[in-house]
Amino acid sequence: MAMNHPNMDTTLSRQLSRFIFNTSFSELSPQVIRYVKFCIFDWLGVTLGGSTEEISTILYDFIREMGGEEQATIIGRQVRTNIVLAALINGSMSHALDFDDTLTGSSIHPSVCIAPAVMAAGEYAAASGKDVIAAFAVGFEIAARIGAAAGLSHYQRGWHATATIGRFGAAAAAAKLLKLNFSEIVNAVGIAGTQIAGLRQVFGTMCKPFHAGKAAMDGVMAACLAKRGFDSSDLILEGRYGFAHVFAPDSDKNKLLYGLGTDYLIVNVAFKRYASALATHSTIEAIKEIKEKERLTADDVHKIEIELGELPLSVIDNREPKRPLEAKFSIYHCAALAFIFGSAGQHMFTEEKLNDPQLCDFRKKVETKLNPDFKLFETKVTVTATDGRNFERLIPVPKGSPENPMTFGEMKNKFKGLVYPVLSRDNTRQIFYAIKGLEDLAEISELMELCANPLK
Amino acid sequence: MAMNHPNMDTTLSRQLSRFIFNTSFSELSPQVIRYVKFCIFDWLGVTLGGSTEEISTILYDFIREMGGEEQATIIGRQVRTNIVLAALINGSMSHALDFDDTLTGSSIHPSVCIAPAVMAAGEYAAASGKDVIAAFAVGFEIAARIGAAAGLSHYQRGWHATATIGRFGAAAAAAKLLKLNFSEIVNAVGIAGTQIAGLRQVFGTMCKPFHAGKAAMDGVMAACLAKRGFDSSDLILEGRYGFAHVFAPDSDKNKLLYGLGTDYLIVNVAFKRYASALATHSTIEAIKEIKEKERLTADDVHKIEIELGELPLSVIDNREPKRPLEAKFSIYHCAALAFIFGSAGQHMFTEEKLNDPQLCDFRKKVETKLNPDFKLFETKVTVTATDGRNFERLIPVPKGSPENPMTFGEMKNKFKGLVYPVLSRDNTRQIFYAIKGLEDLAEISELMELCANPLK
Repeated sequence: MAMNHPNMDTTLSRQLSRFIFNTSFSELSPQVIRYVKFCIFDWLGVTLGGSTEEISTILYDFIREMGGEEQATIIGRQVRTNIVLAALINGSMSHALDFDDTLTGSSIHPSVCIAPAVMAAGEYAAASGKDVIAAFAVGFEIAARIGAAAGLSHYQRGWHATATIGRFGAAAAAAKLLKLNFSEIVNAVGIAGTQIAGLRQVFGTMCKPFHAGKAAMDGVMAACLAKRGFDSSDLILEGRYGFAHVFAPDSDKNKLLYGLGTDYLIVNVAFKRYASALATHSTIEAIKEIKEKERLTADDVHKIEIELGELPLSVIDNREPKRPLEAKFSIYHCAALAFIFGSAGQHMFTEEKLNDPQLCDFRKKVETKLNPDFKLFETKVTVTATDGRNFERLIPVPKGSPENPMTFGEMKNKFKGLVYPVLSRDNTRQIFYAIKGLEDLAEISELMELCANPLK
Repeated sequence: MAMNHPNMDTTLSRQLSRFIFNTSFSELSPQVIRYVKFCIFDWLGVTLGGSTEEISTILYDFIREMGGEEQATIIGRQVRTNIVLAALINGSMSHALDFDDTLTGSSIHPSVCIAPAVMAAGEYAAASGKDVIAAFAVGFEIAARIGAAAGLSHYQRGWHATATIGRFGAAAAAAKLLKLNFSEIVNAVGIAGTQIAGLRQVFGTMCKPFHAGKAAMDGVMAACLAKRGFDSSDLILEGRYGFAHVFAPDSDKNKLLYGLGTDYLIVNVAFKRYASALATHSTIEAIKEIKEKERLTADDVHKIEIELGELPLSVIDNREPKRPLEAKFSIYHCAALAFIFGSAGQHMFTEEKLNDPQLCDFRKKVETKLNPDFKLFETKVTVTATDGRNFERLIPVPKGSPENPMTFGEMKNKFKGLVYPVLSRDNTRQIFYAIKGLEDLAEISELMELCANPLK
């Protein structure tokens, strides 16, 4: 049980909770604030884009059946529900397209768990833009650091790290917005920790995006209960039967604490430019560049060889994708889209394109090759023309990575492409400005109202 | 994704789902039906007893804040809420006293996860007593078998097996009552499986009982979503990143399937006669018997030596309990209660008794001794009198075990002792008869109405 000794931050969750409790907007650097806005902007885009997917309809119908107080907005619908169900559906919708941000060093998609908790709790607490920025930054940092400490082996054991670790981030962010005191925050971290779940076995089904929503929901619930006096262990991270021992035995505590409160990991976040798996992005760029520079047509191409590292290759080596979601994880299909249509946006992953004869033909020209020395997403593409000429392009990191960030114009284009079927042009513009000046927003509900889908 | 091939029950979850789908009341033996009634009766008693605990008040306030359709009864309150929140609070209340049933072969407290799901879904679906009995039997069996297959090492790794495995049982039972078809049941099992959580790190806090309620809630949600077309993996049990590999690498598939549908594990359930840890029960019995037979007073006792196996000793070796809940896990305090007051009922575990000078004095006379050859709860108690005489008593299994069952009279006494502060005598009697004739009940809501607390 967590006890209230403010100067006895002897356990890891007490040290994290001290950071959660102490951090406010005024201490955040302009860079961190800018990244928070990018994350929220990108998250709103993919959530609105995902709001018409089948999983969203099922969850919406379920939530309507359950009922609840009107506390927070369901994005893309003109309906509000209680904060736990709002977090559930908004988080699930935002991960439905697999088009959301990534923090490779922590093996997580951070925003799909944290932003839904922030928006639900923020709206309910009538939080300001500044409150929301601080809560998002804190939630992101907690998830990022627990993910970094847990290491890749946590994911490799079969856990969907986004889901498991996301609960900590969601609880931290919600605890901040619901104004929990220090000892309540310690308990919220503990309550979140004992709910963590999410198996990679269900990848390829609706349960993958559901993981993000459920993590957001469980995190919000943890904060709600802790605020009312519900208790938990303050050794949830390092205790004998706690997170590290049970879920991530190779954990490195230093990554959890080193630079906490000064070095924000949010600046390492990656945004997806294309709607496919991140491991396909360098390939898409290289093919587009070669095609444009060399002015090749599909008939000119004899063969395309894609050289990749081990991890990306294991994710995207699907020669005959059967469903649009699988096509996002097929380097063959993505290469064909990039060459034939010059794009791999959300609207390109359809049944029709999957069976398009020209694309099917082109897929056969694509080959992959393992290069064990390549860094994470480093990719070399070699296009062999029918006349025997070879065109090579090496991409060290894909566009959207911290080392090669998307411009704001590119982020806006992605947003527009996603929300076009759901939002009016007016709403879209208002959302841009609301996020740009987020620190000046009096109440976050103003932004959420803009996302409530005026077309329905 | 689960596909609908009725004759292709090739995966473990398909084989379990076939059993869930096919089993109906008419196939259950009278013995299984009797045990289901015992479990529901015992569960209602501990839930009503737990309904006034602090955790119940916190959850009740939280649930009122969230709101929801009035679909199912909150036990002990004259209030209904939606089925997921009803499952959450009823399950948490029922495990709050740690006085509920146990299935040692599967390392789980089965009813606290299954019964709340059964009652919530059953009430919502206007299920009959027969439907409820069948759903409970099926849910119990699924949890019992997955627990048996997972083995003790799952618990030893740090998982609270009640919580983790309970989700499967709750989903199975709810799926049955909500009338899911075969392929929906397969998905419900998969959705439940990827939500499993619960760490032993939080034992001693409100999170332990919360685990049971959360498991019931997640199981009900899994069934609700699957019924609407939400999909999941059909390899959730044996897949590379599924339950067995990630949670229980020592799993034994044979225990999952051998005798499924014919040998019901429910007949091995144990009910607690005393409100303390099961590991203390043989001790309490032995001390009561010796004291009564030899007509000893506290002053006659020089020393009490308790000989136990390794597992029980590791659970109850707490010489100086600080809180009433800890006292339930102190063999020293339980031995003192047994000798001085001749009982260890729920009302005996109070702050006052913890600090009672006579009990504190008596605790000092108690000693424990490891006997590595003893079976699970086998216990030998030796009372040494001040005049040098020794009185021994060996208890192979405690009262309430399958080998030494409680009589129905004893179960009724336990029930009355628990519900006395909450229910009227009239209600209590009506509940007895409703459960006795459960198969004749037209709607389970009739029973639930009797449990809605007429005193409030």
